[in-house]
Amino acid sequence: MPEKTASADDARSGKMITTRFTERFGLQAPIASAPMAFAAGGQLAAAVGAAGGLGLIGGGYGDPAFLENAFRTAGNTAVGCGFITWRLAENRALLTAALSHQPRAMMLSFGDPAPYCDEIAAAGVPLICQVQTMAHVDDAMAAGADVIVAQGSEAGGHGATRATMTLVPEVCDAVGESTIVLAAGGIADGRGLAAALALGADGVLMGSRFWAAREALTHPRHQAAAVDATGDATIRQRATDIARGYDWPAPFTARVLNNAFVQRWEGRAAEHCAVAEADRPAYAEALARGDPQEAGVFVGEATGLIADVASAADIIERTTAEAERIMKRSSALLI
Amino acid sequence: MPEKTASADDARSGKMITTRFTERFGLQAPIASAPMAFAAGGQLAAAVGAAGGLGLIGGGYGDPAFLENAFRTAGNTAVGCGFITWRLAENRALLTAALSHQPRAMMLSFGDPAPYCDEIAAAGVPLICQVQTMAHVDDAMAAGADVIVAQGSEAGGHGATRATMTLVPEVCDAVGESTIVLAAGGIADGRGLAAALALGADGVLMGSRFWAAREALTHPRHQAAAVDATGDATIRQRATDIARGYDWPAPFTARVLNNAFVQRWEGRAAEHCAVAEADRPAYAEALARGDPQEAGVFVGEATGLIADVASAADIIERTTAEAERIMKRSSALLI
Repeated sequence: MPEKTASADDARSGKMITTRFTERFGLQAPIASAPMAFAAGGQLAAAVGAAGGLGLIGGGYGDPAFLENAFRTAGNTAVGCGFITWRLAENRALLTAALSHQPRAMMLSFGDPAPYCDEIAAAGVPLICQVQTMAHVDDAMAAGADVIVAQGSEAGGHGATRATMTLVPEVCDAVGESTIVLAAGGIADGRGLAAALALGADGVLMGSRFWAAREALTHPRHQAAAVDATGDATIRQRATDIARGYDWPAPFTARVLNNAFVQRWEGRAAEHCAVAEADRPAYAEALARGDPQEAGVFVGEATGLIADVASAADIIERTTAEAERIMKRSSALLI
Repeated sequence: MPEKTASADDARSGKMITTRFTERFGLQAPIASAPMAFAAGGQLAAAVGAAGGLGLIGGGYGDPAFLENAFRTAGNTAVGCGFITWRLAENRALLTAALSHQPRAMMLSFGDPAPYCDEIAAAGVPLICQVQTMAHVDDAMAAGADVIVAQGSEAGGHGATRATMTLVPEVCDAVGESTIVLAAGGIADGRGLAAALALGADGVLMGSRFWAAREALTHPRHQAAAVDATGDATIRQRATDIARGYDWPAPFTARVLNNAFVQRWEGRAAEHCAVAEADRPAYAEALARGDPQEAGVFVGEATGLIADVASAADIIERTTAEAERIMKRSSALLI
């Protein structure tokens, strides 16, 4: 792992926060980018990595061509990868393919990691398990997770019902001192990073903020809708899964902007299921043109804290610099 | 207001965090206790005040005898009071009665404070407005709130859907520098307090943690159930309102332990409404005997962080001491 030094340049650019997470992965900032399906390709993951964070490619629903292209795009920059665990059962070869790239880390979320942890360990790749409830923590620990991400319900995209504010400290208490914990859900700036560290986390995993990065594969019209929205504008729902034909297990739902499409089907899942297959081409077409009203806009409550589309490097720089200012200011609040 | 001094005793007992909130109200800790209906009587509010926080009596659903008794019990200790705003319309005289005690603050939550702010201002009593969404912030500012409490969905009892992690910084951005902001929802220890300050708040309002205080009017069997529960064990629902005949307006629901009573009626609101009046004596009886399965146990996700029933003084001491340790440690994370 590269040795971390606190150069004058680091100090100027605000890359000074060191935790067990930065030390374990040789990072300059305690920040990972979420492996968001369809949004986190090789360009975003590499940009996060180049800026000192841990960039994760979104393995998504199992498209081998997308995965290969993402690793190719990342090029020589070390990146990690993440999969939707329940979906991996139908695409096991994809895990093997991803591990062949010797990723910086392998992240699993939304399902029991047990069937995959041995192969990941055998490849010598650190395992990151994301949990949404305390009930998931035992599975993650049994799988030998090197890092546990505690993801709150305020997160964009798929998640469950627990909030970041309570889940993070409760997970920290449960896993003890030896496991690195990251906070996810609702974190988009230095205030969120500083708060996560105060709650006991060793760093953060940010989704929405990087979903609105220049290097993300997100449609610019979706990003513009998110920049305009307050945090009140999102909702947890299943219509976007029904529309795409994804059979997500309980307790997972997806947080998106509460737009015309979502409102049309809210509380009408059975009716929606009946027409979803016929409607699929129209949904895909709306998605392709970035229609912010007729396709899922997968951003979380942190949308209310996102005021621009920025480069991944700028996001990391601003977030760490703001967190440092807050952490320094902390001592001023003590008499 | 009493002048705050940092005596050696303060330092030992961990009462060292000073913010605009502590300065404005002459507090030794940036902590308020939530004005929880039925749980926050005069003994709890006075104990919080005596320990250096801001104690608030729960004006609840409008029982004049409860209110008078609570102020009498608080005795010479200065306390504040809080009301359920939409309910106050049916009990306007209760506000006048509360203001006659010259409370330390008047808190309004769950409805537009406009009809009441002039009377509160004329009494010279500071106004605290609790908001659950960004849509509520304009009403609070228009009412001239001295303090805004940003309450996340993880809170116990009534609330809405936004999470503390995103709502607090977004509210801070919206209200600007001149308004004091408290964070509420999911905060039960020093980690939560330190995180709230990092998010930009000037302090915290804690409900669940004080609901499980010795001085609260909570039934000991309910407190014991909460101590045993993890944070996964709660749910937002309406069955407890239907059972009691309280017609809460949208978007408010109540977070409670997801017990047998709640599970029995989940998704069956119409059936429940049909039998609720006949069932009311049985519900009241279950509540009176502290049955943890057959009555609402009004605790939030922070229940997973609460390991004991403690005195209000101990809660404030532990919370501030832990927050101070975290805030001091912050500088050690900076290279």
